[in-house]
Amino acid sequence: MTTLAPRSSHGLFTSGEPVRSWIVSTAKPVRYEVGFTPDVLDPRNPALAGAGVPGDGPAPPRRLLVVESTVDELYGDRLRAYGAARGLDYEIHVLTAHEQLKTMDAVFSVARAMDRFGIARRSEPVVALGGGVLMDVVGLACSLYRRSTPYVRVPTTLIGLVDAGVGAKTGVNFGPHKNRLGTYHPAAQTLLDPRFLATLDRRHLSNGMAEILKIALIKDRELFGLLETHGARLVGEHFQGGRRLSPVVREVLGRAVHGMLEELQGNLWESELERVVDYGHSFSPTLEMRALPELLHGEAVCLDMALTTLIAERRGLVRPKERRRILDVMRGLRLPIWHRLCEPAVLGEALVDTVRHRDGSQRLPLPAGIGDAVFVDDVTPGELADAAGRLKASHTADEEAGHA
Amino acid sequence: MTTLAPRSSHGLFTSGEPVRSWIVSTAKPVRYEVGFTPDVLDPRNPALAGAGVPGDGPAPPRRLLVVESTVDELYGDRLRAYGAARGLDYEIHVLTAHEQLKTMDAVFSVARAMDRFGIARRSEPVVALGGGVLMDVVGLACSLYRRSTPYVRVPTTLIGLVDAGVGAKTGVNFGPHKNRLGTYHPAAQTLLDPRFLATLDRRHLSNGMAEILKIALIKDRELFGLLETHGARLVGEHFQGGRRLSPVVREVLGRAVHGMLEELQGNLWESELERVVDYGHSFSPTLEMRALPELLHGEAVCLDMALTTLIAERRGLVRPKERRRILDVMRGLRLPIWHRLCEPAVLGEALVDTVRHRDGSQRLPLPAGIGDAVFVDDVTPGELADAAGRLKASHTADEEAGHA
Repeated sequence: MTTLAPRSSHGLFTSGEPVRSWIVSTAKPVRYEVGFTPDVLDPRNPALAGAGVPGDGPAPPRRLLVVESTVDELYGDRLRAYGAARGLDYEIHVLTAHEQLKTMDAVFSVARAMDRFGIARRSEPVVALGGGVLMDVVGLACSLYRRSTPYVRVPTTLIGLVDAGVGAKTGVNFGPHKNRLGTYHPAAQTLLDPRFLATLDRRHLSNGMAEILKIALIKDRELFGLLETHGARLVGEHFQGGRRLSPVVREVLGRAVHGMLEELQGNLWESELERVVDYGHSFSPTLEMRALPELLHGEAVCLDMALTTLIAERRGLVRPKERRRILDVMRGLRLPIWHRLCEPAVLGEALVDTVRHRDGSQRLPLPAGIGDAVFVDDVTPGELADAAGRLKASHTADEEAGHA
Repeated sequence: MTTLAPRSSHGLFTSGEPVRSWIVSTAKPVRYEVGFTPDVLDPRNPALAGAGVPGDGPAPPRRLLVVESTVDELYGDRLRAYGAARGLDYEIHVLTAHEQLKTMDAVFSVARAMDRFGIARRSEPVVALGGGVLMDVVGLACSLYRRSTPYVRVPTTLIGLVDAGVGAKTGVNFGPHKNRLGTYHPAAQTLLDPRFLATLDRRHLSNGMAEILKIALIKDRELFGLLETHGARLVGEHFQGGRRLSPVVREVLGRAVHGMLEELQGNLWESELERVVDYGHSFSPTLEMRALPELLHGEAVCLDMALTTLIAERRGLVRPKERRRILDVMRGLRLPIWHRLCEPAVLGEALVDTVRHRDGSQRLPLPAGIGDAVFVDDVTPGELADAAGRLKASHTADEEAGHA
């Protein structure tokens, strides 16, 4: 997979001299595992203690655990009991993580903890327990530290389980821009334990549902049907369904993760800029950052999906009945369909930045019916204004109905 | 090259439930070009204007140029004349770069310049003109910005030409640690123009010579011979040798770059931690950072090479006559062989950090004769003290001879 081609050439501009040039051509192999691991904090479960290291590794294993502060409040005792029971030589670094703290300063805090711990380069993966922001921050710190240190993700939120914990991206916000600085550095292993959702608040469950709905809309009609039928109940029951995961919970989470991985695996470094998983992520980065801290990530994504659903409807890609079903699922999941920032000037600026991000073209994914997507490059300001206006009217009608 | 393996398994700990897990297995192709390009600022030379973009790209090409402040003083007028003559739509961001400014703040400065420029994601490579520090900083900024933006390197120092401009590493110092945060993100293209060396001061020429000497010692006996015969003259003549590069200049630079690329190309991401190009880089990171700003990078590398040459001699790997030749070449290049920090306590601490960097073992490259290397894992504090003591004595003798 590697070639080094030294060559002498007179083809280049040389002032008449022979010049030498070399082509380095190689490939970086990447392999990572994502798997459901119920009861990850049960001391009988060896998964967490051994995750991210091939073979048994040195004994006793040393681990730096980076734990989101709310997770530490709720699960810190169990985590320490787990560490003691499994004979881990561990330290815990507690970090408060939310969108406004998603900065390089948080990355530096993790890097300093790695310094203090005296982490080895390959055999002592950092373990990240928390939501999407925490995992993105720890992932970036590990990516940068000695130019890459392995890590393990244990997502504790729904958006972490189905989105941030599954892919390869790390990142932090920079200036006014969402995730402007980051890397591709997947965790060696991600352990998905839906038990954590028992303590997640309703709004953050809805937040994660937005990313599940995204996968449903662009590529999984059956998943959409499951959300339509069971979505509100899943949120209400915190994805628990009794001692064992109910079949619906398992099916919804499994389809969401599988759908996401299917899209990422052939395009992990985004060499192809037309990505269906960018659906809901064309206008939302700007909306989310401008509204900070008002909108959660999934809420901003849902606003973007509502907007683009209406654009798709006007283009004949989505039928009125389908548009109604989509908006009804959003409402059932208690996700917003309109926000005061959804107005032509802001949406236009958002599109300018997204066009730069997609190297000069819109490459805008739009739903095609339910469960499929197409890309367009020619959305006009008029279409944005029309869609935003119709959503505002719907939103106002919803509000009035709610108050009636 | 890509497989996604969804699987159901009862092999994991499951509380009796079926669990699902996925393996993502893929590879990231990387290709970059390093080539000599004399007269890179000659308006008739199209190389710089087109570098880093496949095909012609959009016209007129937009480019953000990040230029080290001394380079801007010396070459800014020619660079602006080049941009005008080639019809570039460009902006210049001037950055002062040296080891004490090799921080994330410098990276942020470049990222903000990219924001202001409104850079496109793939088709507008940043062009970095400067020395090793500048290229490492710009490389890291480009690596992080939107999780990777292409860039072009135009090294203007000798260490940039033969080392920092050739590989894949980016990085900045963090806390007391050299290059503790960084990535692997090679420039799409590096243009090597030895003409810049005409204005480089003697000490920085010697600085770059240390990395050439490293390649000679570990793998290129002929290159060592060239340094022995011509090294002092090359420094004295700033690697110019008349209007056309002399055959010796071309041979020395070509061998240094080729040797470096040969070692990097099969191990670009350092999956193998035994790297001969780490020679001179076991103790030097700590020496360089502790002495800041007293020692240049290559000077610290030379101290490390002198030390390990003496360790190798005691082990019978290098003969006394070879040791004398090696130290004589260092002296001829006006590189230091001893420094007050070369004492057992500091060297011991340096080795502790390097062992972490090499994941638990010393993996210490030592010269084997001239032009070959071996790895050892068992260097003792006594060997370090002995070697440092002998070098101190040599250094003192040199000083006295100099003053006599």
